[in-house]
Amino acid sequence: MESQTIQVDHCAVRKEKPKSDQLDFGRIFTDHMFIMDYSDDLGWHDPRIEPYQQLSIDPSAMVFHYGQSVFEGMKAYLTAEDEIQLFRPEKNMQRLNNSNDRLCIPPIDEKFAIQAIKKLVSVDSDWIPEAEGTSLYIRPFIISTEPYIGVAPSLHYKFIVILSPVGAYYKEGINPIKIAVENEFVRTVKGGTGEAKTGGNYAASLKAQEIAGKKGFAQVLWLDGVEKKYIEEVGSMNIFFKINGEVITPELNGSILEGVTRNSVIQLLKYWDVPVVERKIGMEELQQAHHDGLLEEAFGAGTAAVISPISQFTWNNNDSLIKDGKTGAIAKRLYDTLTGIQYGREKDPFDWIVKVEKGSKIAH
Amino acid sequence: MESQTIQVDHCAVRKEKPKSDQLDFGRIFTDHMFIMDYSDDLGWHDPRIEPYQQLSIDPSAMVFHYGQSVFEGMKAYLTAEDEIQLFRPEKNMQRLNNSNDRLCIPPIDEKFAIQAIKKLVSVDSDWIPEAEGTSLYIRPFIISTEPYIGVAPSLHYKFIVILSPVGAYYKEGINPIKIAVENEFVRTVKGGTGEAKTGGNYAASLKAQEIAGKKGFAQVLWLDGVEKKYIEEVGSMNIFFKINGEVITPELNGSILEGVTRNSVIQLLKYWDVPVVERKIGMEELQQAHHDGLLEEAFGAGTAAVISPISQFTWNNNDSLIKDGKTGAIAKRLYDTLTGIQYGREKDPFDWIVKVEKGSKIAH
Repeated sequence: MESQTIQVDHCAVRKEKPKSDQLDFGRIFTDHMFIMDYSDDLGWHDPRIEPYQQLSIDPSAMVFHYGQSVFEGMKAYLTAEDEIQLFRPEKNMQRLNNSNDRLCIPPIDEKFAIQAIKKLVSVDSDWIPEAEGTSLYIRPFIISTEPYIGVAPSLHYKFIVILSPVGAYYKEGINPIKIAVENEFVRTVKGGTGEAKTGGNYAASLKAQEIAGKKGFAQVLWLDGVEKKYIEEVGSMNIFFKINGEVITPELNGSILEGVTRNSVIQLLKYWDVPVVERKIGMEELQQAHHDGLLEEAFGAGTAAVISPISQFTWNNNDSLIKDGKTGAIAKRLYDTLTGIQYGREKDPFDWIVKVEKGSKIAH
Repeated sequence: MESQTIQVDHCAVRKEKPKSDQLDFGRIFTDHMFIMDYSDDLGWHDPRIEPYQQLSIDPSAMVFHYGQSVFEGMKAYLTAEDEIQLFRPEKNMQRLNNSNDRLCIPPIDEKFAIQAIKKLVSVDSDWIPEAEGTSLYIRPFIISTEPYIGVAPSLHYKFIVILSPVGAYYKEGINPIKIAVENEFVRTVKGGTGEAKTGGNYAASLKAQEIAGKKGFAQVLWLDGVEKKYIEEVGSMNIFFKINGEVITPELNGSILEGVTRNSVIQLLKYWDVPVVERKIGMEELQQAHHDGLLEEAFGAGTAAVISPISQFTWNNNDSLIKDGKTGAIAKRLYDTLTGIQYGREKDPFDWIVKVEKGSKIAH
């Protein structure tokens, strides 16, 4: 597949770009998109960059009925030196293939997919916003398109990449959030699809999030689907706690998504000689640690926010303020270092950065 | 909403119809489809019947990324008197709204939706196949179409109904299947989306089904996601056992889909004074009942197969043949009665049937 040529069909008229400091998340898309088709006889074929446009899909396509889809989320960053950087794209493509496996979707060639993403970012490189904290969000996804309403893996798919310039997650500096522990709804369970980045997990999360949102919480804290005791994720982020000097994150158990930011946080903490452990952690333990004054920090980790400090959790109507409700030192250091590496302000000791050439250098 | 007029745009050229005795399931669709749009400002609006055609949807539409979708399955039957019958459509529309609620999708007007389905079936009534056991499968579904990749309930939806002429489920008479008890993967869990008819549940089921299929099993038997002890569903059907003279089906527990056929089976059994109970039933109990010679029948119940007798289950590599592997008397009687009512051969003591006028009687 590496030898496949990516055809580029440039759009005739470029869209007007939004102002860099007025960007929201995920509502504006760039001029082009990458598409590649799969059929059982041809495999993945016809990789191409086209003008961003509506998809024409049969109403019987499997994705509309049986949710056979997977996706990824990553970003392109512009450095002060006007260089374009991706952050660990190989991790996202590995995970996409893990998700594919769980959802019975044929694997993609990971290296070729990164090449395609780099080319697409390059073609639309003038869409990468420049203002502090902004970036170009990259959304690779695969949908099942066979026009057949039998419950079976589809024989046709589309792998698509779209790009969206996004504003700074924290408009006024990194800002702690209040979260609600969810006792009724669960996101997923061991044996389900929790390890995969697939639509159904997110669809299942909407109801709890809606209820919590109306009560003034930014996110819900998901407990395990079996005992509803153990902490899994927060919203669509992984979660970390600092208890008595040690950083703890729930171990990967088959229902927790293996976050790229999660993995990066663990590597950084080890690099800094900060004690970090992946293990089961229950709500009772967390509440007790808070009660004993040992819960020093809590924060979410994910591509969108990078690090999201948690100021308070509410469980069974009890509000627990974490320390003074301010961003903790570890969360701040992780945020500064990760964004520093992403935006090229800090050294990259782990070779996490992949450079992308600017569009003008690409032959059209 | 009842007062809304359904605009009908007839297609210019009718497609060629398949031969009634050569029909498969879910690959051929009729000439028309019903569509109605939702936006947060207009609510459900613009109900219309259009030529069956590809949907034009933005690649950022929520359904492609976060699986916010629901569907239903029902059938139109042609009687020997050339009358068109629906079976309990109000149950499907009730369930669609229950699914909508779980998925944060705005409710539809159930009566209007049935009116729309009747009108669509009427317009394409010459597509209802005539051969024994054939029918017109009706697939109502709702997809989230807002072009926004934030994780939040969509503000735009499409409610669509498509129709597919389908062959007899049992080409050579009702035929028992072998099933495998699934110990690794789960379909869903309490607190998840199991009660809702949403894509993610079906996407989650593909992997186990694929593995079981390769081993020669027709369906998997799903156990509960918490203890993996209690029986939930078989494939995408509800399940019934006859043990020592009593019919048992797993009680609705928050993760089992409330099947329309399941409900009809329970009503029929009560009408016949056959003991029937909804309760938890575990694999240990089932295995023991089989061992003691008390397991008299097992069968699935769903719209596609109506009744699907089970001849054998395999748990932890132990094969258990149920009786002599033949279709049981209760399964046979239920199948004959339900299909009898659906095709107008039997009396309908429950008022389950809703008649549809033939297209020629509808003003174009």
